[in-house]
Order: sequence, then structure tokens, then C-alpha cells
Amino acid sequence: MRNWKDVNGKLIIKVLGLLLIIEGFFMWLCLPFSYYFQSGDFFDILLSGIITTLSGLIIWFFTRKNKNKNLGKREGYIIVTFAWIIISIFGALPFVLNGAIPNYTNAFFETMSGFTTTGASILTDIESVPKGLLFWRSLTHWIGGMGIIVLSLAILPILGIGGMQLFAAEVPGPTPDKLHPRVTGTAKRLWGIYILLTIVETVFLLFGGMDFFDSLCHSFGTMATGGFSTKNNSIMGFSPYIQYVIAIFMILAGTNFTLHYFALMGKFDKLKKNEEFRFYMLLIIIATVIITISMIILRNTAFEKAFRDSLFQVVSIVTTTGFVTSDYLLWPNYVWFLIFLLMFTGGCAGSTGGGIKAMRQLLLFKNSAVQLKRLIHPRAFIPVKFNGKSIPQEIILNILAFFLFYMIIFAFGTLVMSFLGLDLNSAMGSVIASLGNIGPAIGDVGPTGNYAAIPSVGKWFLSFLMLLGRLEIFTVLIILTPAFWKK
Amino acid sequence: MRNWKDVNGKLIIKVLGLLLIIEGFFMWLCLPFSYYFQSGDFFDILLSGIITTLSGLIIWFFTRKNKNKNLGKREGYIIVTFAWIIISIFGALPFVLNGAIPNYTNAFFETMSGFTTTGASILTDIESVPKGLLFWRSLTHWIGGMGIIVLSLAILPILGIGGMQLFAAEVPGPTPDKLHPRVTGTAKRLWGIYILLTIVETVFLLFGGMDFFDSLCHSFGTMATGGFSTKNNSIMGFSPYIQYVIAIFMILAGTNFTLHYFALMGKFDKLKKNEEFRFYMLLIIIATVIITISMIILRNTAFEKAFRDSLFQVVSIVTTTGFVTSDYLLWPNYVWFLIFLLMFTGGCAGSTGGGIKAMRQLLLFKNSAVQLKRLIHPRAFIPVKFNGKSIPQEIILNILAFFLFYMIIFAFGTLVMSFLGLDLNSAMGSVIASLGNIGPAIGDVGPTGNYAAIPSVGKWFLSFLMLLGRLEIFTVLIILTPAFWKK
Repeated sequence: MRNWKDVNGKLIIKVLGLLLIIEGFFMWLCLPFSYYFQSGDFFDILLSGIITTLSGLIIWFFTRKNKNKNLGKREGYIIVTFAWIIISIFGALPFVLNGAIPNYTNAFFETMSGFTTTGASILTDIESVPKGLLFWRSLTHWIGGMGIIVLSLAILPILGIGGMQLFAAEVPGPTPDKLHPRVTGTAKRLWGIYILLTIVETVFLLFGGMDFFDSLCHSFGTMATGGFSTKNNSIMGFSPYIQYVIAIFMILAGTNFTLHYFALMGKFDKLKKNEEFRFYMLLIIIATVIITISMIILRNTAFEKAFRDSLFQVVSIVTTTGFVTSDYLLWPNYVWFLIFLLMFTGGCAGSTGGGIKAMRQLLLFKNSAVQLKRLIHPRAFIPVKFNGKSIPQEIILNILAFFLFYMIIFAFGTLVMSFLGLDLNSAMGSVIASLGNIGPAIGDVGPTGNYAAIPSVGKWFLSFLMLLGRLEIFTVLIILTPAFWKK
Repeated sequence: MRNWKDVNGKLIIKVLGLLLIIEGFFMWLCLPFSYYFQSGDFFDILLSGIITTLSGLIIWFFTRKNKNKNLGKREGYIIVTFAWIIISIFGALPFVLNGAIPNYTNAFFETMSGFTTTGASILTDIESVPKGLLFWRSLTHWIGGMGIIVLSLAILPILGIGGMQLFAAEVPGPTPDKLHPRVTGTAKRLWGIYILLTIVETVFLLFGGMDFFDSLCHSFGTMATGGFSTKNNSIMGFSPYIQYVIAIFMILAGTNFTLHYFALMGKFDKLKKNEEFRFYMLLIIIATVIITISMIILRNTAFEKAFRDSLFQVVSIVTTTGFVTSDYLLWPNYVWFLIFLLMFTGGCAGSTGGGIKAMRQLLLFKNSAVQLKRLIHPRAFIPVKFNGKSIPQEIILNILAFFLFYMIIFAFGTLVMSFLGLDLNSAMGSVIASLGNIGPAIGDVGPTGNYAAIPSVGKWFLSFLMLLGRLEIFTVLIILTPAFWKK
């Protein structure tokens, strides 16, 4: 293992340059749609792609001679954090150059919201945005989701962040201290699944009568648990069939992708035995049942409609997607508070979902149960078990730290947003929806509202929270620690 | 150590009987005030005392032959929980017999609020309540505070609850598995300090022109960090001198009583070196400064008034007392949200203050910092230190469990209260103010509101939360665990 010495700055810049080159190519993927719909954003997108790729090439040109390929943990933290920042900085270009989002702050917010698969939007009239740009907006979700899969299943376990190491054992790899070989192998396998599921969902949506453009965009938004829609009313106007399809694929997107891999290999027992997956499904089922019954009794809603809306909104929030079929703020008081509580849950670790994550919650619960038992039997050693294995106390302490940071950031963030003039519900809502990468929240930023009216400072702050949440907090926080930069 | 076998039920009942006998005597302490003020509640209080003492005597008579003096941990949990319940059941009698609070639910709520040193009230016109009963109301605080001091410094450390064992070392005692000898010695010393501080505060208040009755009642409310006042406007109508005196004694009441003991012995270095005390003071100072500046700039308040109100409210909330000099809900948005956040803090462990407690928060913060460091130096062993000692991971995991239970109960409680029809702020407020033993909160149960309008079910539920919070959650939860009752 190499010493903990100066970071390999040139290599970091080189990697970021390569990312920009790739991002430029992704931008050009929007051109066919722009051309087909004659939406008038063709040259804006073309130019943005050229600027982005060219910037990447220039960076690459100046760092190409760097032969030091030592990519350690410290470089890992820096690359991951700045990757999301730099692709958002450039990713905002198409919106600004076109003028669909003339204000750069707004464009950056929208792009960061895209790449972090948050889905919080500053757009007040989504349908008036040119199709090429709408495609780019959805594509940012999908690219972000790709990044998250690699990050959560290959990079974060090695970095040892917030319990993610529990999944490291699942993915074989020879050199835990060097990122490269492991990442490549895992990435290929899991991206294959990600692409496959996206295609399958698109086909299902096409089958339900959605056009190709919308099907693709909504599949991007679903599989990345993003939540950007191409419609002003999100999923409200679509048929029940479409709503069910999206709900099911949100559930799949919120599931650990390693489990999809095992399912495809025919190892269904891995799925059945997985405690996190069972916890995640149980949460969805219980919340759906409670809300369905509440809507039937208190609002006289017909069963199918009550069930569909409840299921859709519960899944949308738990997986941190943020699609909307019904304005839950109009539901009974305690029901939308329950929805608000679900914003503190999250998908499975190793999925594209954000939030605290089912695995962490389960382990926190289990530790609480164990602590109660230990009070009764003080001399017995009772370990916390997960998927049949004893979990080291160190990992639980790490998850505790994650949970505490999460709650402190939530509290502090709410303080900041209320200082900027938001009422308490909107302040709490905007913060948890950004930190948990959800999108719609409560208050003025509810399911039928948007983030347009938030002051600029607030938008930058929320963008930072999206980044923090998406990168599991530690990745960003650690860079802000003075100790990180000491030799 | 004895085996973990059947609980010693007779001994438990005997102890509870003795408590009732004592409670009856305490009731009669109100008679002189009733007689002096001719407030017309003399016979109601006399009768309540007779009923209570007589009930205790009957219980004692039937259990007196019990010679098995084995008082183990399991008996400890049961006695502590039922002690608070049974004295509240009987303590409500004077209110009901007199008719000042005709409804038993309300009377029980008020009494539980008193004994748990919460200070949440259902009274809409406090000044119309007969003086004898008002004295009893304040006395319930003071008795509750006495109980808490013994509990938190002598009993809970032995039971090993939520980090309280960190203070066990401070109090010498030969037999950690038997409660009796240790409790007696510690209790005598700390009760002495409690009584002394109460007398000193009373003198200071008398000196400021408050009459003897009010001085005594407010000293009871302060030293127990309770918050019941004899006035409708709490402390608003009193002079700045009185307000400062109460603020200072609230700070003292929220300090670990072991530190008072050391201070009286002249060991001031113990005070200076105590990290929890420093954290507690720092929190008060920072919050006071922020709010003072906010009030001066945003509300043009004069410096002295801004400082006094800020200090008083910050101290009142942090120590979980709940006295009021200013309606903080009328302060700027983010300021009252800050006050709301302070409701999640609490006094020092080993004080009469409730809430999460400074010690636990400090340890949670420290663990988070340590976890960040461990990510940078994965091979180094970095312990969490507190007052110069390394803290075992087991204790931190126990505190984590406490924190998680606290947050889950807060979330679940809010759900229950919003189900009962409260708006979100009132629901969150009533739950945290009950669980944290604070009293006034936000929304309809704010500093100028009260708990009268809450539905009966809600009052019983909040009473249960007061008990849960006051007994550090575990003490009550453990009894509800099936494993507790297994042989």
C-alpha cells in the first residue's frame, strides 16, 4: 500500500478531463431529437457539446504525459466529488445558451438536480422547453444513475463509507487498495443490467401508448430514481397502466443492482434471503396499505384509485424518485406527514435511490433491539446480524455517524432555508428533498410546486445538499476536513 | 449475583406502598398555604392525603411480612416506572376532589406533567386555581426533581442505560448489583444540594420583591426544571432582576449535581475540566448570541431586553424548564425554528433537566468526528474520548440506540398527534415538548398556548411520552419487551 502522501493532482485533473470529453458526446445524443422535433435548440446543444468536449481535450492534452497511475483512496474522494461538480457546471450550458433557462444559477440547479438524480426543478412550464433540451435534462438523470451504480457498488465500499463495505464482499476483486481493476469489472456487469432495465421499461411504456420520446425520458427518470418528467403534471395525466409500469420499475430501480444480477443468474434465493430487500418491500407495503385505507375511509376514494395513488406516491418517495400522480398535500394531515416521514427512508444500498437507505435503517433498528436485549442480559455478547453475518461494531458506529450527520445537516439546512425566508414546512421540505435526492417535498416545494421562487443563495445551497446526499455525505465532508490535506 | 428469575413482586408492591405513604405526607405540606390564603381547598387536600396515605398503609400492611430484600435490576426497572405512574394516579386527586380540574384525564395529565418535571399545562386560567392546589402543583415538580436526581445519578448508571454509566464511577458504592446502599448514600448528599439551591433561589426571589408563596413555587419549578408558574403569563410580568435570577438557577438546575457537590467541596477544576458542562454552556452562549443579534437587527429591540429574553428562553428550553418571558413564536421565522431545534438538546446528565442530554450529544458528535478521521486513517485505532477517558464502543452503541428510539418516538408520536387532528407544528411541538419534558412548544401548544384543547386520547398519549422521556426511554421500553418477562 502506498503512503498517505501528496495527492496525485495531475491524474485527478486528467480523469476529470476525460469525463468532460464523454459528457460532450452525451450532449450530442440529444441532437437527433432536436432535429426530429425541429425544436430550435440544435445549435445550442451542438455548441455546448463542442465547448465541453474541447475543454476536456485541452485538459487531457496538458495532463496526458502523466504516467503516475497511482489512484488511491484520497484521489477517489476528490475525483468523485469534483466529477459531479464539473459535469454540472458544463451540463448547464445547453439551457443557458438556448435561453430556455437564461439564469445560470437556475440552470446549474436544474443540472445538479439531474446528475444527482434528485429531480427538483425550477421550471414552471416544462412543456415549453425545446425537446432537445428536455432530452438532455432526462439524460442527466440517466448518466447520474450510471455514476451512482459504480460509485455505490464499487467505489464507496472500498472507501469504507457508511456501511457500504457490507456489499464489498459481493463483488470479487483482487486489490482493495487500488480502485481501477475492480471498478471496471463491476461497472460493466451492472451497467448492462441498468441499460437492459431501461430498454425493457421503454418497451412497456411504448406498449401503453406513450410516444418514443416520452417513453425514453420517463425510463431515464425512473431507472435513475430521478423524477424529471417531460410533462407539467408529471405522471398525473397518463393512464393507470403507465402509472403501474412506472411504479414497478421504480421499485426495481430502488433495489440493490447486485440482486438484479443474481436474479438474472437464476439465484433467486439470494433475493429472498436479502434482509435489506425484505425490509424495503415491507416498508412499501405497510405504508401503501395505511394510506390506501385512509383514502378509502376518509376521502371515499374508489379502491383501485386509492391503491394506485398510494402505491405510486409511496414508491416514488421511498425510492427517492419524485414522480407525482396525485398531490399528496391535499391528502389528510397525518397522511402527508407520513409521506414526509418516508422522505427519511430511501432505496436499497447499491441501487440508484438516494436517502438514508434501507440497509442503514435496518442496522440502526437492529442495534436498538440488541441494546434492549443487552440491558436484560448484561453479560451476554449479542452481535448485530445482517443477512446471517455478524456486523462489526465499527460499521455500526460508522452508520451512526452517517445518520447523525444526516440529521444535523437536515436541521442546519432547515435553519438556513428559513433564514432565507421560507416557511417551516417549505424549509424542511426543500432540505430533505435535496439531501435525500427526492425532488418534490412539502410546503411551497410540494408535488405541484417547484423551486423557482427560492432565492439564488438558497438554490446554490440546495445544490450543495444534493451533492452531499448523493455522495453519501462522507465523500464530500472528508474533503472539507483539514486532516484530509495533511501529509 | 442472583439469577435472573421471577421478579420479587411483593417487594415491588411494598416499595410502591411506601411511596404512597410519603406522597400523602407531601400533600399535607400544602395545608398551611391553603389555610393561610383561605383558598377553600383545605379539606380536598386533607382528604386526598388521607386516601393516598391510607392506600399506602393498606398495601404496606399486606406486604410487610415480605422478608426477601433482594432488589435486583429487574425490580429496579419496574419500581421506577410504576413509581411515576402510581404517584401521578393519586397525585391527581386534589385537583379532581376540589373541582379545580374536574376532568380526571386533565388532572392526571397535569400531575404527570408535574412529576415528570415537564410543565405542560391544561389550565387556561392558572390564577383562578386555589393556592393550596397551586402549591401542590409546584410541589409535584419538586418531588419529581428529587426522584430524578437519585434516578439519574444512582439508579440508571447501575442499570446501564444510555451512557449514564459514565457517571457511575463518580459515586462510590460497594455493591453495584444491589441498589440499596449506593442509592441511600448518594441520595442524601445530592438531595442536600437540591434543597440548599432551592432555599437560596427562594431567598434571591424574595429579595427581588416576589412574595413568599410565589418565590417558593417558582424555586420548585426552577430547580426541578419543571416550568409550572403560579401566573397566567409565566415569568413575563416579573422584573428583569427576577428573570435573571431564574435564568441563572435554571442553568444550575441543568448542571450535573455531582459537579455542584465537587464545587461545594472546593474542587473547581472538576467543573472546569468537565466536557459536558463546557458543551452545555457553549450551546447556551452561542444560541443566546445568535438570537440576541437577530432581535437587535431584525426587530430593533433594545440590547438589554434582547439579551435578557434570548438568554431566558434559550436557557429555559435547553434545560427543558419551560418558563416563558417572551412569546418566541412571534420572533423571526428562523429564530423560533432555532428554539425548536434546541428542544432536541437537553440539560446535563445527572441534572433535573430532561431531553437527549448534553453528554449524549457530545458523544454522538465526537463519534462522528472520529469516524471521519478513521476514513482518512483506516488502520489507526482512534477511540472516542470523554473527560480524558476512552469510551467503550458498547456505550456509544447504547447512546445511538437511545438517540434512534428518541427520533422514532418523535416521528411516530407526531404521526399519532396529527392523526388526532393537530396541525403539523402543534403535533411536532406537543410531542417533543412532552418527550423532552419541556412544556411549551410550537404551534397551538406554544409559549402562550396550553394543552387544554388536545383530545383525551392525545393527553394520555402525551402523558405516556412524558414518562418515557423522563425515565430515559429504556426504563419503560424494557418492561414492554417480552424477553424481560422470560425466566
